[in-house]
Amino acid sequence: MGTVHHIGIDIGGTNIVCGLVSEEGTLIHKIKWPTEAAQGGSHVFDRIAAMIDKLLTEANVSRQSVQAVGIGTPGLVDPERGVTEFAGNLRWTNVPVADEVARRSGFPVFIDNDVRMYVYGEAMRGAARGFRHVLGVTLGTGLAAAIVNDGSLYYGGGNLAGELGHIKLEGIPYECGCGGFGCLETMVSGSGIARQAKAKLLAGEPSLLRDWFPDASYDHLTAADVSRAYDAGDPAAIAVMQTTGRLLGQALSYAVTILSPDVVVIGGGGANAGERIMAPMREELKRLVFVKYWERLVITAAEHNDDAGIFGSAWNARQRLLRKEGN
Amino acid sequence: MGTVHHIGIDIGGTNIVCGLVSEEGTLIHKIKWPTEAAQGGSHVFDRIAAMIDKLLTEANVSRQSVQAVGIGTPGLVDPERGVTEFAGNLRWTNVPVADEVARRSGFPVFIDNDVRMYVYGEAMRGAARGFRHVLGVTLGTGLAAAIVNDGSLYYGGGNLAGELGHIKLEGIPYECGCGGFGCLETMVSGSGIARQAKAKLLAGEPSLLRDWFPDASYDHLTAADVSRAYDAGDPAAIAVMQTTGRLLGQALSYAVTILSPDVVVIGGGGANAGERIMAPMREELKRLVFVKYWERLVITAAEHNDDAGIFGSAWNARQRLLRKEGN
Repeated sequence: MGTVHHIGIDIGGTNIVCGLVSEEGTLIHKIKWPTEAAQGGSHVFDRIAAMIDKLLTEANVSRQSVQAVGIGTPGLVDPERGVTEFAGNLRWTNVPVADEVARRSGFPVFIDNDVRMYVYGEAMRGAARGFRHVLGVTLGTGLAAAIVNDGSLYYGGGNLAGELGHIKLEGIPYECGCGGFGCLETMVSGSGIARQAKAKLLAGEPSLLRDWFPDASYDHLTAADVSRAYDAGDPAAIAVMQTTGRLLGQALSYAVTILSPDVVVIGGGGANAGERIMAPMREELKRLVFVKYWERLVITAAEHNDDAGIFGSAWNARQRLLRKEGN
Repeated sequence: MGTVHHIGIDIGGTNIVCGLVSEEGTLIHKIKWPTEAAQGGSHVFDRIAAMIDKLLTEANVSRQSVQAVGIGTPGLVDPERGVTEFAGNLRWTNVPVADEVARRSGFPVFIDNDVRMYVYGEAMRGAARGFRHVLGVTLGTGLAAAIVNDGSLYYGGGNLAGELGHIKLEGIPYECGCGGFGCLETMVSGSGIARQAKAKLLAGEPSLLRDWFPDASYDHLTAADVSRAYDAGDPAAIAVMQTTGRLLGQALSYAVTILSPDVVVIGGGGANAGERIMAPMREELKRLVFVKYWERLVITAAEHNDDAGIFGSAWNARQRLLRKEGN
């Protein structure tokens, strides 16, 4: 067998990213197109088939060298059936993504949840490589987690493991999109950070952010604005980041005590807040967990922040194809 | 090969229980002797070898039919090395239990943590049989948990997974034996229930328990007394059981959201409090978890309350011997 490649694809609400990964784990080439989800599933799948062709042409790699395609989608995914059961931001319900893309592209296709793929990428090809027990957390629009043990993803019953964003902690006063009240991700996420800052502004707390949004159009305020205000020494922004970090640390203290991971890897767009969140997170986690956990735990930022999903999906396709051929 | 048996042993601070289990999963015979831990490890291991002889004689079963011996001990256990690293109530530090018992008994011996063995017994031979993802909780002197996925125990890094009793929740005002403050098991456990009742009595709350302990010798008050007072309609006892159940439900809401077990099985001596705790636990768990977890989750009491550890250790010995012979 000559050179071997796998393709990893991440379908997001805004963009599709499609990458070519070598057997050695090098990301050879990647392209990004708008998802255009509003034009329907068929349109999206046609685009993905066209993206794969373009990716291979641009990389000057033969179709024959590609073993399989892996895809991550948001929402609830059943990897055994290859179906995205529900993805709100794509408006998909029970969509047979694997079959649709396989038929159009001619490759074997394996799908999974995007957070699991991200964490799988970090576990096998990124910052958590070499650790037996990996807990990965993505801090993006929402907050989610995935678990990898000895190189295998842990799914849990109904493929529902890892919904860290929906644990309910004391003192969280917001309704969540899931229908619950007090879910962690209403405060600990990119949108949660913005929500907290907005609440402080509406409550009349002094803040630089008020000067930056003079017409009180706080709906456009983002976590990045809160980071900028934090860096300028703004007390309201500092309080938001500390609350966010402490709540994350509290939630992680439960996850660490239940799972005893060897490493916690933290990624996603919200992780750009970096030490502004991570410092109070570590402090709270250390305070709350039994010392034996703390002493052996490694906490690290993701290595392939933008590309972890590609690495994870490509690796997942590789592993699932091997398993299928083994049967 | 003729009839095959495995022996399962549970070493507790007070008693050793030793049981003979058939290949079909029948507990054929069991005996219980005091541990006499104060007389030292050698004494305990001599007793275990003598117990095994007595067990086989009384059951009229040949030594040749016994494939292996499994043992559960309290504390931190490394099953790969066969060493109990720390067990406070036995005063053991780095004791090579497996080798000591193997040398004296002539059988292959495999050891593990007693809570893991209890939950393994319920998962493979008890109330959680047939479920893929099992979370088992033992409510005894302390509170602990273990996880079984697809018939395999999950250990986590450092074999530290499942220390549910040491998560810290808001509003728990007690120091814990682990050195931490606010650990769940200081309130949710047999001793925790007694501690809560005692605190109410010392705070002057009216209670039947005061009449039952007229000399205020509350140190002898147990969870069973609180159950009796509950059944007599005592408001203080009812409040203690409701608080206990709600805190357990809160902790389980975190574990269920992270792991998505198919079944939660609850056992241990403290589980004798039964519905007095389980009703508020279920109510709180239902309130706190995302509806998809609740809809598919089975919650059940342990089936072999006294014998689950024997079944688990016997099964563990069976599986580890098969794996060893397979290598």
